[in-house]
Amino acid sequence: MNKRLTFKLIGKVLMVEAALMAVPLVVSLLMGGGDAPAILISMAITMAVGGLLSLLRPRNDNLRAREGFAIVALGWILVSFFGGLPFFFHGSIPSLVDCFFEATSGFTTTGSTILTDVEALPKGLLFWRSFTHWVGGMGVLVLSLALIPKMGARSIHLMRAESPGPSMDKLVPRVGNNARILYRLYIALSALMLIALLCTGVNLYDSLIHMFGAAGTGGFSNYNLSVGALNNPAAEIVIGVFMALFGVNFSVYYFLLRRNWRASLGNSELHAYWAILLGSTLIIAFNILPQAGDFLTSLRLSFFQVSTIMTTTGYATTDFNLWPQLSRTILVMLMLIGSSAGSTGGGIKVVRLQLLCKSMVREIRRTVHPRSVNTIRFDGRAVDESVISSTLAFFFAYIFVLLASTLIVSLDGFSFETNFTAVVATLSNIGPGLDMVGPMGNFSQFSDLSKIVLSLCMLIGRLEVFPILMLAAPSAWRKY
Amino acid sequence: MNKRLTFKLIGKVLMVEAALMAVPLVVSLLMGGGDAPAILISMAITMAVGGLLSLLRPRNDNLRAREGFAIVALGWILVSFFGGLPFFFHGSIPSLVDCFFEATSGFTTTGSTILTDVEALPKGLLFWRSFTHWVGGMGVLVLSLALIPKMGARSIHLMRAESPGPSMDKLVPRVGNNARILYRLYIALSALMLIALLCTGVNLYDSLIHMFGAAGTGGFSNYNLSVGALNNPAAEIVIGVFMALFGVNFSVYYFLLRRNWRASLGNSELHAYWAILLGSTLIIAFNILPQAGDFLTSLRLSFFQVSTIMTTTGYATTDFNLWPQLSRTILVMLMLIGSSAGSTGGGIKVVRLQLLCKSMVREIRRTVHPRSVNTIRFDGRAVDESVISSTLAFFFAYIFVLLASTLIVSLDGFSFETNFTAVVATLSNIGPGLDMVGPMGNFSQFSDLSKIVLSLCMLIGRLEVFPILMLAAPSAWRKY
Repeated sequence: MNKRLTFKLIGKVLMVEAALMAVPLVVSLLMGGGDAPAILISMAITMAVGGLLSLLRPRNDNLRAREGFAIVALGWILVSFFGGLPFFFHGSIPSLVDCFFEATSGFTTTGSTILTDVEALPKGLLFWRSFTHWVGGMGVLVLSLALIPKMGARSIHLMRAESPGPSMDKLVPRVGNNARILYRLYIALSALMLIALLCTGVNLYDSLIHMFGAAGTGGFSNYNLSVGALNNPAAEIVIGVFMALFGVNFSVYYFLLRRNWRASLGNSELHAYWAILLGSTLIIAFNILPQAGDFLTSLRLSFFQVSTIMTTTGYATTDFNLWPQLSRTILVMLMLIGSSAGSTGGGIKVVRLQLLCKSMVREIRRTVHPRSVNTIRFDGRAVDESVISSTLAFFFAYIFVLLASTLIVSLDGFSFETNFTAVVATLSNIGPGLDMVGPMGNFSQFSDLSKIVLSLCMLIGRLEVFPILMLAAPSAWRKY
Repeated sequence: MNKRLTFKLIGKVLMVEAALMAVPLVVSLLMGGGDAPAILISMAITMAVGGLLSLLRPRNDNLRAREGFAIVALGWILVSFFGGLPFFFHGSIPSLVDCFFEATSGFTTTGSTILTDVEALPKGLLFWRSFTHWVGGMGVLVLSLALIPKMGARSIHLMRAESPGPSMDKLVPRVGNNARILYRLYIALSALMLIALLCTGVNLYDSLIHMFGAAGTGGFSNYNLSVGALNNPAAEIVIGVFMALFGVNFSVYYFLLRRNWRASLGNSELHAYWAILLGSTLIIAFNILPQAGDFLTSLRLSFFQVSTIMTTTGYATTDFNLWPQLSRTILVMLMLIGSSAGSTGGGIKVVRLQLLCKSMVREIRRTVHPRSVNTIRFDGRAVDESVISSTLAFFFAYIFVLLASTLIVSLDGFSFETNFTAVVATLSNIGPGLDMVGPMGNFSQFSDLSKIVLSLCMLIGRLEVFPILMLAAPSAWRKY
């Protein structure tokens, strides 16, 4: 691996992060709360480390796939570490492991928290915590690519390593342009949501916080009761709808704006995504009807919860821990499925599920007709066998990480439901699980070991498993 | 599909089943209990239906893969249905759904029960219940192949559809001979176990019952407290050791007897199987040490439980529901892994896990070196890509069935742990799960729908997923 080039580029990413800290610094100075010094110190340290790393002189500028994945994997770990410093220096989260957990949860758009009282945090830190969702949603690297021109001629590897889904849709030939188009769409949709929220009467600060969480499909709120604290059904509907919109592949919006109807609305992942989302909403709405009272309330609660879980956001308006077992189990399934590829959401992704189901059906067909040749087709095109086999291997790796992590977390002795759903909630970047880590619970009671494992699960989930696992492969570190 | 040939051969299998019922009939007549008439009626009905079906005149004897799978899938469903009749006619299990559940659990060597008081059953029925384990362990079809010569020239399809594992090792060229060799090994190992059990002072009837359950890796006992009721540590050790031996691929024994050391002891699945089994035993032994008192007791309890769960037998000597969460979680993982291919046990199988891990590692390697060509090797030979992709598709199908069934079972409203482990326990043919279906619990409280779903899970698991799913494919039923 070209280590100098790798760390030089990570240094640049850290400098971008330090620059981003200026935003909460301004908020803190405007709104008070005494957290400005903590943010300033963290900013200075991050800038210094980033600056030092970016002084490295690599022997060549050869950015191959392995450097791309290493920059993304190590970059995310370091960005999360430095992003947790403001909480540490302010003293509101005294343990460094907890700070790392909270910041990783922010950048990976998970939204799991170790805080028992969110409202005790000053406004600047709360803003930073939610702002990391917004930045992490579209990708720290993608942002850096959009901001810094010529990060490397073959920076396509960087973008491919960070973007979610089995294969990246290149919208336009040049990587930097792709990154800028994605960010423009992201900013436009975010602005629309902010306006809609303001129209429902939510104040600017709360609107920004909840827009960040929904756009990045993160789920951090500035209230202990999450979105429920707004006590505003109109705002709930706005957040519910926008979460669902941010769970759609962004290329759908790009092609929609270019009036390429077939490439946007004809996308079969889009159809499956809405079918699962609306189907689950209906089943749960009927299932919780006795608890909710009337059908409209039931539908509103159900839609919000399905949207928040399937897009892997994790906001709460009600404690679904108290719902009937069928609804709870549907939510666990949605946690695993996740949102669309190329969106800001996590999970296995709808398109992968479609490919997996197609290869299962093919295997059944092979049982009946062993000698037939079956090519899997998707959106009218034949899918390459290597994509099928990587998708299948991805699925196994996902379940493998899920079970291995559940085993380690079970050392803490909590219930099977707590451990299993805590891992699913972090690995799929959702936030809350069931039982102890339910929507009204938090992750504070886990041991440091479990918190580190769960933080790694968030990173593994956000970066789609292989980049982080790759760091453990000795061959990745070899010189050539 | 050649329907006449399919049903003609199923008819022959049913006639074999009717003949097998003579064994419990003799036991009933010798030991009393008044269940002889019920067994006799069931025998007559099964023989009559089987006889009528075997009168069918197929237009040709062309037995292709699809007929092979259909005979196995439908054959097992019908054999389970008729096998449940003795319980129904005796009146000890009044519901036909419950009878089907209990008999399916027997033949598929699952060992889950809907009986709240096993000891209330008469001796003949208890014997039949356990005898189905012994027959189902090696396979009803394999038995028919061994007994009836010339069941069809291409009966390899029958054996392949019924035998567990990603690909069948053909020991000798002729199928009938293969079946006979396997049954001879099975009978020899069963006889050894029976002698060992008698030596520990267990009476003949109890020895036979527990030998049937261990040999077939089933798990039905004639006592409510299962093996714990024998109150005999020596017998526990004998049962524990033989369960582990029946979880080994039978080709290992065949090659051992032929002194082909490399093909038997060099088998890498064998190494992984023992490594997982003994490793888990040690971890659990240390984990339950505070509860067990001394290390030897702890080791005995742990070994028995790991052996019973990993081989998917499901006997109990202690209520592991009360063990620490780490041990319980390890047991859930072992439930999924299961025993070796070509053994009488169920689960995903160790060799599949090895192939899955190898393809995960290959995918990581591809991340680092995208252009490298990687062939997966196993036991020194290159594995065909089609085996890898079927194994990966098998894994997805397994998890898919697991999650879909958990969803349906959750309609009954029991805990997530109950539903999830009930499905794992039936799909992997183990028997007990955790919580309500723990080793001291039973499946009686589930609704009829759940019982049918769980029975199908047992069949899906025993026949390795695709044969049963194939029945739902319309193309399987088309004429040509």
